[in-house]
Amino acid sequence: MTQISELKKNIDPDLTGAQMHRLMEKLYPICRSITGDGVRKTLDIVGERIPLSISEVPTGTRVFDWTVPREWNIRDAYIKAPSGERVVDFKANNLHVMSYSVPVHAKMPLSKLKDHLFTLPDRPGWVPYRTSYYAENWGFCLSHEQLTQLPEAVYEVCVDSSLEEGNLTYGECFLRGERPDEVLISCHVCHPSLCNDNLSGIALAAFLAGLLRPLSLRYSYRFLFIPGTIGSITWLALHEDRTRRIKHGLVVTGVGDPGGFTYKKSRRDCAEIDRIVEHVLKHSGAAYEIADFSPYGYDERQYCSPGFDLPVGCLQRTPHGKYPQYHTSADNLEFVKPAALAESLLLYLGVVDVVENNGLYVNTNPMCEPQLGRRGLYTAIGGRSDSFDRQMAMLWVLNLSDGSNTLLDIACRSQLRFDLVREVADALLQHGLLRGEPSGRGSGA
Amino acid sequence: MTQISELKKNIDPDLTGAQMHRLMEKLYPICRSITGDGVRKTLDIVGERIPLSISEVPTGTRVFDWTVPREWNIRDAYIKAPSGERVVDFKANNLHVMSYSVPVHAKMPLSKLKDHLFTLPDRPGWVPYRTSYYAENWGFCLSHEQLTQLPEAVYEVCVDSSLEEGNLTYGECFLRGERPDEVLISCHVCHPSLCNDNLSGIALAAFLAGLLRPLSLRYSYRFLFIPGTIGSITWLALHEDRTRRIKHGLVVTGVGDPGGFTYKKSRRDCAEIDRIVEHVLKHSGAAYEIADFSPYGYDERQYCSPGFDLPVGCLQRTPHGKYPQYHTSADNLEFVKPAALAESLLLYLGVVDVVENNGLYVNTNPMCEPQLGRRGLYTAIGGRSDSFDRQMAMLWVLNLSDGSNTLLDIACRSQLRFDLVREVADALLQHGLLRGEPSGRGSGA
Amino acid sequence: MTQISELKKNIDPDLTGAQMHRLMEKLYPICRSITGDGVRKTLDIVGERIPLSISEVPTGTRVFDWTVPREWNIRDAYIKAPSGERVVDFKANNLHVMSYSVPVHAKMPLSKLKDHLFTLPDRPGWVPYRTSYYAENWGFCLSHEQLTQLPEAVYEVCVDSSLEEGNLTYGECFLRGERPDEVLISCHVCHPSLCNDNLSGIALAAFLAGLLRPLSLRYSYRFLFIPGTIGSITWLALHEDRTRRIKHGLVVTGVGDPGGFTYKKSRRDCAEIDRIVEHVLKHSGAAYEIADFSPYGYDERQYCSPGFDLPVGCLQRTPHGKYPQYHTSADNLEFVKPAALAESLLLYLGVVDVVENNGLYVNTNPMCEPQLGRRGLYTAIGGRSDSFDRQMAMLWVLNLSDGSNTLLDIACRSQLRFDLVREVADALLQHGLLRGEPSGRGSGA
Repeated sequence: MTQISELKKNIDPDLTGAQMHRLMEKLYPICRSITGDGVRKTLDIVGERIPLSISEVPTGTRVFDWTVPREWNIRDAYIKAPSGERVVDFKANNLHVMSYSVPVHAKMPLSKLKDHLFTLPDRPGWVPYRTSYYAENWGFCLSHEQLTQLPEAVYEVCVDSSLEEGNLTYGECFLRGERPDEVLISCHVCHPSLCNDNLSGIALAAFLAGLLRPLSLRYSYRFLFIPGTIGSITWLALHEDRTRRIKHGLVVTGVGDPGGFTYKKSRRDCAEIDRIVEHVLKHSGAAYEIADFSPYGYDERQYCSPGFDLPVGCLQRTPHGKYPQYHTSADNLEFVKPAALAESLLLYLGVVDVVENNGLYVNTNPMCEPQLGRRGLYTAIGGRSDSFDRQMAMLWVLNLSDGSNTLLDIACRSQLRFDLVREVADALLQHGLLRGEPSGRGSGA
Repeated sequence: MTQISELKKNIDPDLTGAQMHRLMEKLYPICRSITGDGVRKTLDIVGERIPLSISEVPTGTRVFDWTVPREWNIRDAYIKAPSGERVVDFKANNLHVMSYSVPVHAKMPLSKLKDHLFTLPDRPGWVPYRTSYYAENWGFCLSHEQLTQLPEAVYEVCVDSSLEEGNLTYGECFLRGERPDEVLISCHVCHPSLCNDNLSGIALAAFLAGLLRPLSLRYSYRFLFIPGTIGSITWLALHEDRTRRIKHGLVVTGVGDPGGFTYKKSRRDCAEIDRIVEHVLKHSGAAYEIADFSPYGYDERQYCSPGFDLPVGCLQRTPHGKYPQYHTSADNLEFVKPAALAESLLLYLGVVDVVENNGLYVNTNPMCEPQLGRRGLYTAIGGRSDSFDRQMAMLWVLNLSDGSNTLLDIACRSQLRFDLVREVADALLQHGLLRGEPSGRGSGA
Repeated sequence: MTQISELKKNIDPDLTGAQMHRLMEKLYPICRSITGDGVRKTLDIVGERIPLSISEVPTGTRVFDWTVPREWNIRDAYIKAPSGERVVDFKANNLHVMSYSVPVHAKMPLSKLKDHLFTLPDRPGWVPYRTSYYAENWGFCLSHEQLTQLPEAVYEVCVDSSLEEGNLTYGECFLRGERPDEVLISCHVCHPSLCNDNLSGIALAAFLAGLLRPLSLRYSYRFLFIPGTIGSITWLALHEDRTRRIKHGLVVTGVGDPGGFTYKKSRRDCAEIDRIVEHVLKHSGAAYEIADFSPYGYDERQYCSPGFDLPVGCLQRTPHGKYPQYHTSADNLEFVKPAALAESLLLYLGVVDVVENNGLYVNTNPMCEPQLGRRGLYTAIGGRSDSFDRQMAMLWVLNLSDGSNTLLDIACRSQLRFDLVREVADALLQHGLLRGEPSGRGSGA
């Protein structure tokens, strides 16, 4: 048995789900954007759980076709009625201010103010999430119900923000494994009080890093906590050479909603990570869909741009845009479920288990079957179904280990679970019936 | 937008369909066969619309395994009752005489005459179409109803035909494009008063040539108006070297009946023309079927013979033999519909549009996405569905333009319409975000 | 027409099925195991029909990872009640003794005896079949009904067997063909009174060899009559070099039950034999299934081990374990049907027909179609459906014979029967329209 299988068994989903949710509760109130102190505070909190190296990239740095923007910070923002009452207040909910709003302090009639107000007429009780990173503007988001009830009047509007030379901030947790080859886990940290997109991804990445950290791993693991789009572009621009080491990668987000899983394949369509995730989902018992790559979505857009074409997919639950709460105030702490968070974490661990334990072995007795009976490896077929599967797994591993099939290939062709294939491969290795590359310290090889 | 897309928009289907039908009305009465004056008259009429070079290939010319046959001409033919009445008269309907009937003038009882009479017992009101090109014989075709009513008597039969040294005649319309690479459009001109097979193909080819002629085209276009089988064999034998230039080809016939489209793929099965036609049909809104190649059918049999293996498919409506009117007097001017003719012509234009505008481009910013926003190319996604599609098309073109995918490949993988993909590629070319081969003057490149 | 097609037509299924069944009746009473006189007697009887060379491989011979075991022979065995009555008697049914039971002669109470008794509680009237080749033990098999009625008492048990240095025996029938390339037909001869598994396979192999023997064959044919597992391992170990000549192979067993056919593909998945058997089954009119290779089953496990990876599939009717009679006394002479045996034999002949007659030809007139009419090869299409198929077959063979497609490839792509494709290829060869390798004397080439 591998370390990760054991680790999975020791996880109490209720407890872990609750802990992940508590981390999200801590992060929820912070006003994050693609730059600024919100990101720094978020990384500080994540850094309490896992070792995080923080990078600051100055405004104006050229990153491929893009430029690191000015840093945005905000202290306060409101719309005040003639009565002096704050009818819209950033301090009550940071979604009320459009992200990257430029400073403003003015009085204006409702009719003019409306050019800067955003609502969701179809979801009249919810506040939308809006940004204007690259076009200078300011704005407020509020519920449509509230908008329709605002009396005609002259309102005082104030956005006490700053857009100044500064930095783009991101965090990195690197777990050095036996090999320089890397597995990339990337989540975005630029959304304010929104839970499924993006706090669930941050929580999963932080917990996964925490769980893997004490293990002896075959691969090195790189966890990126970065602002969306400009963050991944910045990281790729600054680490172009290092990207060659990335052998597998996943973008993690949207892992707390109660829906089934969706895996969006990498641009390569049949990279090892694509086959691994599909295999793990197939045997997970959970509902899932496999989606083809498309150049729209999260940071896989950048990782899978043609100049990089990295084997990076996106493993989430309900895809963005397919749940109405997406990018609204309804994507809150109640929308994400501890049980869903824990299930997602366990699924990611299952993927890591295959990543770590896949390997290519060679049957040392390729001419006919070896005599398993005299080695005590032959259990009467026809007995318990698990022993039948175990026996079949052994025959499959022996038959296909001709130097061209990995254990994952064998699991796929035999339709058996990877962990069973791995388990019998370990037994065959111990008896000298297989040889090959060592496959992680957990493998018994 | 490309020239051809604009051209398509300016076509009034009602008007054009009626014009195509009128051309067929002019051609309908002529008695065509694989040689003879009927072909010459037909080419004269086609030549009034488009520049046509006429070739005459002498009887006896060896063309691969075949020999150009004697030229057949016919002046009159009839079966005369004892009363002197012409009960079967070539002048009333040229289908009454079996094509290539040798001359005969004799009297014989009905019992003997019957060896030379052909009817369709299952379709008692229709006159069949029969030929005997390579076996010397004579015959008459009539309705089964008429046959059963012919009284027992001695009849006078006369076929006033000639089979003499002469020529095989065919016509060619060549439109020189930017490149020597050719697109072949081939139709047969050997059937007498039969409309869907073959007048509809002649009309479509003539109109298509007329429409393309004023354009600046990337490919050169060769329209062949040839007798079936022996005509394509003759042309191939005389232009063996030139066939290497043929990059795409279509055999056109059966494009006027009211049924859905059928595209029979080339022998190559996944030639570019096969993928283009399938893409155009898929997005056409029309009913269609894709059929595998088979060595039975029209002149694609010769173009796709193993020594040539040209990328030539057959794009028709209802396939030959699948409509009862096929090769009978019921395949007449009423059977073919102006609306079907116009729809077929527009579909062919859609195919030419992709042929002309497909191309291979390379993303000049392959590392991450380029910043579309600062170039004004980024329209907020989530707005109108066509702007969403446009944005997606842009992302797809950027993502897949790595030097291995043509615009058609991109349209197929993204499931977007080719013209949208082409349109955004033009915008990206204008902004320097793509580079690559120029792709026709209509492309804006 | 090929020799084998003619042969098939001359076979009377009723007569042949009855003859095959009679051979099984002769073999049924013999107590076979993986070694011993039962195998020798079996091979003697088979040797009356076909020339069989017998090999004896001494106990202790190393064969890859295995060792040839001691030879087992048995004279008598029984369980005697206190009354002296033999309540279980080997002489009544040799399934009553577990194969390879070591000698024993003792008295013991039922409670202790029960450790050595095997029954089928789910099938209380049937006697199971048990073996213990590699673990020293003794045992009796009986019906569950009988066991539940045995009174508590002290019983005398006797197994009068011997396990001694001796030999493993197998038989081989080799038919030398034009080429050294071999077709392997392998059946196992190690089961006692069990009919479908394995007597039906022995009967089919013996009859097939008998039918092929007088023919002039392109391939050489090797029929192996061997004990399962250790027999194929032994043969492979002693003839490792010769295995390179094996171009096609089938393991034959389970061909007498009334179920449909099942073909289990070779490990290569698309070897020529796999495509041949699928083609023959598809056009056989019989019910059938195609199963993927799996490393569990009969001797294909050894032939398809990774070091050999021979193109050997298993063509049977109902697969082992899928019929309840499997490995019980109910797999008897009534379970196997003469009609099923004959149908299986004819199917194997159909496979051999394609094996013998497949070939690669080249169209000598690849530029356009040759003129079939002047060679009398053109029959009016539209006439009888078989002449239409014949004409289509001719066009397909001409079109695809470009040096890359065998006749089997052509039959598959055209969806026509192989024998029709072969037949028209012969006609085309006779007219010089094809050339290529000669393909068996039956082909007319």
